[in-house]
Amino acid sequence: MIRRASAVPLVLILAAGSALAADLTEQYRPTADKLIAAALADTEGYNRLAYLCYRIGNRLSGSPGLEKALAWSVETMKAAGLSNVRVIPAKVPHWVRGAESARMVTPVERPLHVLGLGMSIGTPPGGITAAVVAVSTFQDLARLGRAGIQGKIVLYNEEYQGYGPTRVYRSTGASRAAEFGAAAALVRSVTPLAMQIPHTGEMSYDDRQPRIPAAAVSPEDAMMMARLVEDGVPVTVHLEMGAQMLPDADSGDVIGEIPGREHPEEVVVMGGHIDSWDVGQGAQDDGASVVACLQAVALMKKLGLEPRRTIRVAFWVNEENGGRGGVAYRDFIGDKIKDQAAALEMDGGAEAPRGFGASVDAPSMALLQQIGKLLERVGAGEIIVGGGGSDIGPLLRDGVPGLSERTSGAHYFDWHHTDADTLDKVNPMDFRKNVAALAVMGYVLADMPERLVAAYGGARGGPLR
Amino acid sequence: MIRRASAVPLVLILAAGSALAADLTEQYRPTADKLIAAALADTEGYNRLAYLCYRIGNRLSGSPGLEKALAWSVETMKAAGLSNVRVIPAKVPHWVRGAESARMVTPVERPLHVLGLGMSIGTPPGGITAAVVAVSTFQDLARLGRAGIQGKIVLYNEEYQGYGPTRVYRSTGASRAAEFGAAAALVRSVTPLAMQIPHTGEMSYDDRQPRIPAAAVSPEDAMMMARLVEDGVPVTVHLEMGAQMLPDADSGDVIGEIPGREHPEEVVVMGGHIDSWDVGQGAQDDGASVVACLQAVALMKKLGLEPRRTIRVAFWVNEENGGRGGVAYRDFIGDKIKDQAAALEMDGGAEAPRGFGASVDAPSMALLQQIGKLLERVGAGEIIVGGGGSDIGPLLRDGVPGLSERTSGAHYFDWHHTDADTLDKVNPMDFRKNVAALAVMGYVLADMPERLVAAYGGARGGPLR
Repeated sequence: MIRRASAVPLVLILAAGSALAADLTEQYRPTADKLIAAALADTEGYNRLAYLCYRIGNRLSGSPGLEKALAWSVETMKAAGLSNVRVIPAKVPHWVRGAESARMVTPVERPLHVLGLGMSIGTPPGGITAAVVAVSTFQDLARLGRAGIQGKIVLYNEEYQGYGPTRVYRSTGASRAAEFGAAAALVRSVTPLAMQIPHTGEMSYDDRQPRIPAAAVSPEDAMMMARLVEDGVPVTVHLEMGAQMLPDADSGDVIGEIPGREHPEEVVVMGGHIDSWDVGQGAQDDGASVVACLQAVALMKKLGLEPRRTIRVAFWVNEENGGRGGVAYRDFIGDKIKDQAAALEMDGGAEAPRGFGASVDAPSMALLQQIGKLLERVGAGEIIVGGGGSDIGPLLRDGVPGLSERTSGAHYFDWHHTDADTLDKVNPMDFRKNVAALAVMGYVLADMPERLVAAYGGARGGPLR
Repeated sequence: MIRRASAVPLVLILAAGSALAADLTEQYRPTADKLIAAALADTEGYNRLAYLCYRIGNRLSGSPGLEKALAWSVETMKAAGLSNVRVIPAKVPHWVRGAESARMVTPVERPLHVLGLGMSIGTPPGGITAAVVAVSTFQDLARLGRAGIQGKIVLYNEEYQGYGPTRVYRSTGASRAAEFGAAAALVRSVTPLAMQIPHTGEMSYDDRQPRIPAAAVSPEDAMMMARLVEDGVPVTVHLEMGAQMLPDADSGDVIGEIPGREHPEEVVVMGGHIDSWDVGQGAQDDGASVVACLQAVALMKKLGLEPRRTIRVAFWVNEENGGRGGVAYRDFIGDKIKDQAAALEMDGGAEAPRGFGASVDAPSMALLQQIGKLLERVGAGEIIVGGGGSDIGPLLRDGVPGLSERTSGAHYFDWHHTDADTLDKVNPMDFRKNVAALAVMGYVLADMPERLVAAYGGARGGPLR
């Protein structure tokens, strides 16, 4: 059950929260300092990440890389001394890229830097050759209408305005163009950095429209074609994509834990996703996160720490193109949802940590801020409103207090979903600081007498959704 | 002849220089302001660069791209109203890359991001498969010796320490490794930015050693293989390169000018190189420079400015892999070397301009600083010691005062010699500021009563070299 119930007047909760808060900082400082020292001195975690990146590599749902990664995850959690290591089965979509290429054929022959979007269909054998029509926004698209678009390849050349606003062209652009009869869609990579490298990512189809192939192009290629078209120079592109969707594959989430010494039935879970796109090494997205979460708990184990509640590490599967791992995990929890004390997701890379976002009520925020004080020495003390993530979404919707670890995110979207998401992007010291932040936050959440209360959901008012 | 002769005592020159300096600033301010205004409002120059980048593209010596670029250069100089537009013939090396690829085959199969080094031989048909030995420096290489290197692929994984210090592995690494019996050399790309993109560049062979193929690898691939080897994991690579050297090709420098109104025989030449590597668009290296120099003179023409001496634009050829254009230009000058009033080379891209480097004597520096004052409003007023460049090297060696335009260089080596050296990297406003700086410097050098004196060379003491 959710401990701090809504029967207690808010003012009392706030007062109690403040009073307890200082206690949390004081109470846990010695343990936090031990965990931080261990994390900052740790090399095992980064070595584990190096193995995942260099010896296994990328790991899209359904791929042999993912199978290897899951086997390695089980083995590594066991090696770290975790208990109850197991795989929660999940069926995952099995999209395969196949061979792909594109080139501009007029006004000059030039290879293009493309990467099919995840879940896209392929082209017919032999590919598609068509004139390019360039737009920035959906408004431009509507203005051109069917007369301007029918049979053509639509190029979305919208400049990066932040990941959230700009990814909409990647996720829905194909169907929006198909509505006007487009033959295919090319989408400028969703990134602030132009280094002639395409960024893939998930797209989905609107069932009311015909399905057309969709690929990301490098920002440079997008800008070039858009300018030529703008200058009145006809641009023709040949696009070939061998993408196909195979039957769902067997896969699963991997979890392991330190059982709670007083309330083993209550669980604080923290993790990230073990799958990645099929390029690069999935280092920042999200290898560093899963390994950092694992290492945080591995260090508790090494230090002989046994929190009051169970602390569990989860390597969720299929975050990138389906979210089946998060759903399978929620199903696995079943009717024990009220025993889930907190869920923490890390899916923004392991650049220098800043702190945590949390979707919890005000007294809980006060508690978190007191834990945050323990993390100031690694720069991770900032607690802000708003925490969550794809994998823990199904838990949060049912009232579990949600957190996400936050980092500087200085270059995350330079590398995101590309061939350049590789181990070297993870600075070893930043990685260790993330481990420190996760270890302290995870341990205190699992050990403190209080429990967090979600900002929305069942804890206050009404039944759990 | 070189005007200000060494017969005048230095102290007098300095005094005269200082006195004249203020005059130069005052005297040329109205004209400079007109040129700057014209340059900052100009769109024609950037459009010309766009044509070169998007419609012609890269242009390695001997390639059809270069032929197109030379024809376009002649046409564009004529369109800009320049006189005496002509091609100075030069035979250029004709290296062709051919098909190339590489992959790691153990411990896991993984494609590598390679780009053969310019002038390298190819591999035998079917490629080379060999164990990788990783070094950082030539000291490491010597330590391993023939026993450690024979038959292997040497990977140079030296971290970027600045272009000058680090390029030595690219230019000489193959022969240094061949000395110990290496089968091939892979060189970590010479760049501060790791974005999974390889950077090519020139290499040359030591005739005393067997020739082995050499390719650049992305920083990421270099770091990965080096770490695996360091961890004791055997790494094997398969490398295929179809590179070959064809007979020298006919090519040439393109020049055009505004003849001097008083001393047409005296020449201030400014330019860059029209050739590029065979990847990307040669936008920053060195398309932006040649077009900026052209546009600077085109604006003088538009404004009806006719300097005292001839101002000449030069698009030198074959800077990247041979330097034949610079030599051909020196030969073209022949015994008129004393009439060369100054030579200005721009080969560092067109990021925000900072000023000029100059290899001139102290009084000449004082003059340049006064010209620099006219450029402070576009941020290009800084005059420092040391100016030159590959293309004007043969002139400078014979006593011509040399200058080079300098920019912030913030990202130049991120893009240098890669597929990402594309038009978008050239900020239009920075480009215009470069045009402004070149126009003012070029015009004043060609018009001022004084002439610069080289820091070294014939002007002071001894005959011209």
